[in-house]
Amino acid sequence: MPIINVQLFEGRTVEQKRAYAKALTEASVQVLGCSASAVDVIFSDVKKSDWASGGKLCSDTE
Amino acid sequence: MPIINVQLFEGRTVEQKRAYAKALTEASVQVLGCSASAVDVIFSDVKKSDWASGGKLCSDTE
Amino acid sequence: MPIINVQLFEGRTVEQKRAYAKALTEASVQVLGCSASAVDVIFSDVKKSDWASGGKLCSDTE
Amino acid sequence: MPIINVQLFEGRTVEQKRAYAKALTEASVQVLGCSASAVDVIFSDVKKSDWASGGKLCSDTE
Amino acid sequence: MPIINVQLFEGRTVEQKRAYAKALTEASVQVLGCSASAVDVIFSDVKKSDWASGGKLCSDTE
Amino acid sequence: MPIINVQLFEGRTVEQKRAYAKALTEASVQVLGCSASAVDVIFSDVKKSDWASGGKLCSDTE
Repeated sequence: MPIINVQLFEGRTVEQKRAYAKALTEASVQVLGCSASAVDVIFSDVKKSDWASGGKLCSDTE
Repeated sequence: MPIINVQLFEGRTVEQKRAYAKALTEASVQVLGCSASAVDVIFSDVKKSDWASGGKLCSDTE
Repeated sequence: MPIINVQLFEGRTVEQKRAYAKALTEASVQVLGCSASAVDVIFSDVKKSDWASGGKLCSDTE
Repeated sequence: MPIINVQLFEGRTVEQKRAYAKALTEASVQVLGCSASAVDVIFSDVKKSDWASGGKLCSDTE
Repeated sequence: MPIINVQLFEGRTVEQKRAYAKALTEASVQVLGCSASAVDVIFSDVKKSDWASGGKLCSDTE
Repeated sequence: MPIINVQLFEGRTVEQKRAYAKALTEASVQVLGCSASAVDVIFSDVKKSDWASGGKLCSDTE
């Protein structure tokens, strides 16, 4: 509590997710004053062919 | 804004998702009066063995 | 199946949501070939003070 | 109605998910008084390297 | 871990949610073999005018 | 891209959310190397009577 669900393009490395989860958790602790152990972060990789912006698949607009 | 998350059975082609994202975005623009660029659509493929209806996995009820 | 979750700014009328749900469902039927009765649409109203883009609450950037 | 989205570590078998969906649906019917056919359950498998608790990826803390 | 997100019509009492959370958690413990303390359940009340099935708002079809 | 959905207990002030959105966005920019304008953060306030941990509503365990 909080639970942070992050949808992002697939392709990030485990090292990036490790750093990202740490940074998001530290931001939560700093602002909310909660303990780090209370923070859950879940990453959902999304293919560019599964994400559309402006009506066009991101895989079509690179 | 809006963000449209669509959970659907896996198996749809990229062509179908391309058309679907376009149609959902056009519906948003038409009804909400927003610009197309403000609309995000994200597809989440779900296996039939990960979706249950009526207490039964959809993979068991075909 | 599909389930369509739409996050949008609060303030839309029931009439707009009625038209929007109809349009999203028709787009689903047309592209996926499913029956309308298989489509669920859920709207989640989000306050502009609960949505940030570019690191700034949308309530601060109007 | 209801729609139950379950995020869980990947690795569960179809047999476990079959039993789990049945149990969650029965709990819904019992408490809410709805029909089983009104209950959707969707499982989202999450890799331990995509889930962080306490700022650390679960794949790092086993 | 698991995290169980339940979308349901608004109007359920705290007593119902208390019993429902208990039942969903017990089902999780029984099937997954996890500890109860590892289970989070979050209820999201949805107005019938924010939920459409078959292209029609549930508030219109009662 | 990314989209960050945060479920947290209700009761946080707009000032806290403003700071939190800023911190989450900065963490995203720093780790992913994306532009701030590509980051969406959405807060969902959850009542303690709508969140259960260990099978008990958080409103019952304070």
